Amino acid sequence: MSTVYVTREVNFNAAHRLHNSAKSVEWNQSVFGKCNSENWHGHNYTLQVTVAGVPDPDTGYVIDLSILKQVIHDHVVRHIDHKNLNLDVPFLDGIIPSTENLVVAIWNQLSNALPSGKLYCVRLFETPRNSAEYFGPINET
Amino acid sequence: MSTVYVTREVNFNAAHRLHNSAKSVEWNQSVFGKCNSENWHGHNYTLQVTVAGVPDPDTGYVIDLSILKQVIHDHVVRHIDHKNLNLDVPFLDGIIPSTENLVVAIWNQLSNALPSGKLYCVRLFETPRNSAEYFGPINET
Amino acid sequence: MSTVYVTREVNFNAAHRLHNSAKSVEWNQSVFGKCNSENWHGHNYTLQVTVAGVPDPDTGYVIDLSILKQVIHDHVVRHIDHKNLNLDVPFLDGIIPSTENLVVAIWNQLSNALPSGKLYCVRLFETPRNSAEYFGPINET
Amino acid sequence: MSTVYVTREVNFNAAHRLHNSAKSVEWNQSVFGKCNSENWHGHNYTLQVTVAGVPDPDTGYVIDLSILKQVIHDHVVRHIDHKNLNLDVPFLDGIIPSTENLVVAIWNQLSNALPSGKLYCVRLFETPRNSAEYFGPINET
Amino acid sequence: MSTVYVTREVNFNAAHRLHNSAKSVEWNQSVFGKCNSENWHGHNYTLQVTVAGVPDPDTGYVIDLSILKQVIHDHVVRHIDHKNLNLDVPFLDGIIPSTENLVVAIWNQLSNALPSGKLYCVRLFETPRNSAEYFGPINET
Amino acid sequence: MSTVYVTREVNFNAAHRLHNSAKSVEWNQSVFGKCNSENWHGHNYTLQVTVAGVPDPDTGYVIDLSILKQVIHDHVVRHIDHKNLNLDVPFLDGIIPSTENLVVAIWNQLSNALPSGKLYCVRLFETPRNSAEYFGPINET
Repeated sequence: MSTVYVTREVNFNAAHRLHNSAKSVEWNQSVFGKCNSENWHGHNYTLQVTVAGVPDPDTGYVIDLSILKQVIHDHVVRHIDHKNLNLDVPFLDGIIPSTENLVVAIWNQLSNALPSGKLYCVRLFETPRNSAEYFGPINET
Repeated sequence: MSTVYVTREVNFNAAHRLHNSAKSVEWNQSVFGKCNSENWHGHNYTLQVTVAGVPDPDTGYVIDLSILKQVIHDHVVRHIDHKNLNLDVPFLDGIIPSTENLVVAIWNQLSNALPSGKLYCVRLFETPRNSAEYFGPINET
Repeated sequence: MSTVYVTREVNFNAAHRLHNSAKSVEWNQSVFGKCNSENWHGHNYTLQVTVAGVPDPDTGYVIDLSILKQVIHDHVVRHIDHKNLNLDVPFLDGIIPSTENLVVAIWNQLSNALPSGKLYCVRLFETPRNSAEYFGPINET
Repeated sequence: MSTVYVTREVNFNAAHRLHNSAKSVEWNQSVFGKCNSENWHGHNYTLQVTVAGVPDPDTGYVIDLSILKQVIHDHVVRHIDHKNLNLDVPFLDGIIPSTENLVVAIWNQLSNALPSGKLYCVRLFETPRNSAEYFGPINET
Repeated sequence: MSTVYVTREVNFNAAHRLHNSAKSVEWNQSVFGKCNSENWHGHNYTLQVTVAGVPDPDTGYVIDLSILKQVIHDHVVRHIDHKNLNLDVPFLDGIIPSTENLVVAIWNQLSNALPSGKLYCVRLFETPRNSAEYFGPINET
Repeated sequence: MSTVYVTREVNFNAAHRLHNSAKSVEWNQSVFGKCNSENWHGHNYTLQVTVAGVPDPDTGYVIDLSILKQVIHDHVVRHIDHKNLNLDVPFLDGIIPSTENLVVAIWNQLSNALPSGKLYCVRLFETPRNSAEYFGPINET
């Protein structure tokens, strides 16, 4: 039997600011520019979660996408939608909320909530032109 | 000669919060729900500005769209991009930053910066699903 | 004060078939072609509902879009999503489900459910390339 | 009975250059900038044609969109797709191919090919961010 | 020389229903929910077919995309566009038309119609938010 | 630490023509059809550049996307935007400007301008339906 990859897309809206509190104000302004703006800015984030597997013969599903949607909501979206990513989200505590760091943190939230080996890719669009993808730590071994 | 309507679309990213400071915390939470979230949230806003006129016979232009883009930048985008709409923007001072109030405020910023009678419509998408349009106070006479 | 137009977009998926039961099989096949296909076909419909009004000074809202979303769900989407538009929908009984007829029927569902004079336009995309718009019977007087 | 507006979207790809041959090289470079580039540039144009009318009781159609698509193809697209708008198109002879001038010329091509009073709007996107709309000479009377 | 991947996107509209006829009505309703709705529903499907190869030095083509479009039409689209995926399509006979099962079936239709080793990926969007991808049985060896 | 892939999307508009000057007029017309049209046609190209790496602990960046945008502008976009791909672009000299050949040429422009091993994928959309992807010569060893 053959592996099929299924993807579910969801949205959330959040405020954030790129800021490294271990560095000076000048370093932050120089490195992050307007993304360091003091009183925050925000985005309509688009999150795409891909799960891999062999379709179940009884259902034709790799995963029931309404269940996947619920898992994404419970473990990610309800914690970050209409929130401040620097201040309000326990699973982002101490993390600079760049798109790169967000996909790794979202992967970690989801990988334990899904059956082992199922999660394949997390892609996050900060804007329609800027995105990051993460395929998990298995790439590194 | 005939009127043609030309539209230029631009983007900006901002943080905001729906909050009426003349009302109680309870009223605000009840009326605005998660849009009242204390530490802000944000959006990728899409702004569409429409100008009406008769094309110039020498250029074929109602307005040079690179000039319109510059006017929108100077009078709107540079004031609100990567900013907090409640705290950072003089032309939004005292205004609850709902999409409805934003299109009226942006119209007022642009109408004085464009030749008289040129500005036709300001449309703002807060998300791809939610938008507001304003055609100016001439509708009201 | 000035009129602002706010739009909320929602989606639904449905099966349908263009068929006039008062006409012959040959007439239907000739007029409707593949849209008359016997065992139905279907679409991801995109519905845009526009409401007009003066923003409330306390909220900045013409209408709370979460309330508009709920009204659209209760009066339209829950009746037609994942349904057969020819067989399953009481408010479409006896109506050929062309995009034109659907926008008029959806207008009639919504106009009674919203405060008088609020509903401004119903637009429905059958596909990203094909759509219909209806501004209500007030155009006709 | 009530007016409904139906829209069909089509695409074409063309080369063009903004250039007024009655003016000097310097005037053209100053006014049109990179759009005056000597060896042409080009666009994926998106054309939206809107027709107004009362749905036919037998079909539910304002106009059969496959017929509208054919009319647009015969009178517009087959003349301009994969062509040079300055050199190859008889109905654009002597016209500076700005988006504004193109919507007026396309309106004139279509208005005679459709039943009287049916054509309502021609909208053309030169890019996803830049567009022009024309509602015909009836606005001017 | 280097491998390049070219993708062609096409659309089709179809009705379907998720239903396993070997199971009870209750099982089907419980597992598939509204996707099991008795009188069908439908989608605007978007199909993306990717072919891999080294560009031909004479043409610059991995494959002539107008030929690929014709192959997709002849082997897939003409069999399923404006059809019922459960009732009308010989190559889907006995298959529950989940997006996962559809990409595998479409791969099988196309892999024999294209030169050996050319087909790289079949991706199908049931809605803009839900999709499945299949890279063929070579992943499994 | 883990590899993350970041993508930046940019646009440019250009004229081109598919034509092999070593072949006859008849061969070119037969092979390239309307894409061989004598006086050029053009496209709004969408270019997506993906860079791979481990996020920097101080910034959370694989690469500063404003730097990547500048590199793409300096080495690609400023040479080809509002240009004729057959006539005006030194780095495309002698290359038939098919989408396949363009992604390889753009890869070569970018790979030397980015830190070694960073560039992962170049994807180019000629139209929203037609695209090509290139992952570099490392696939071939």
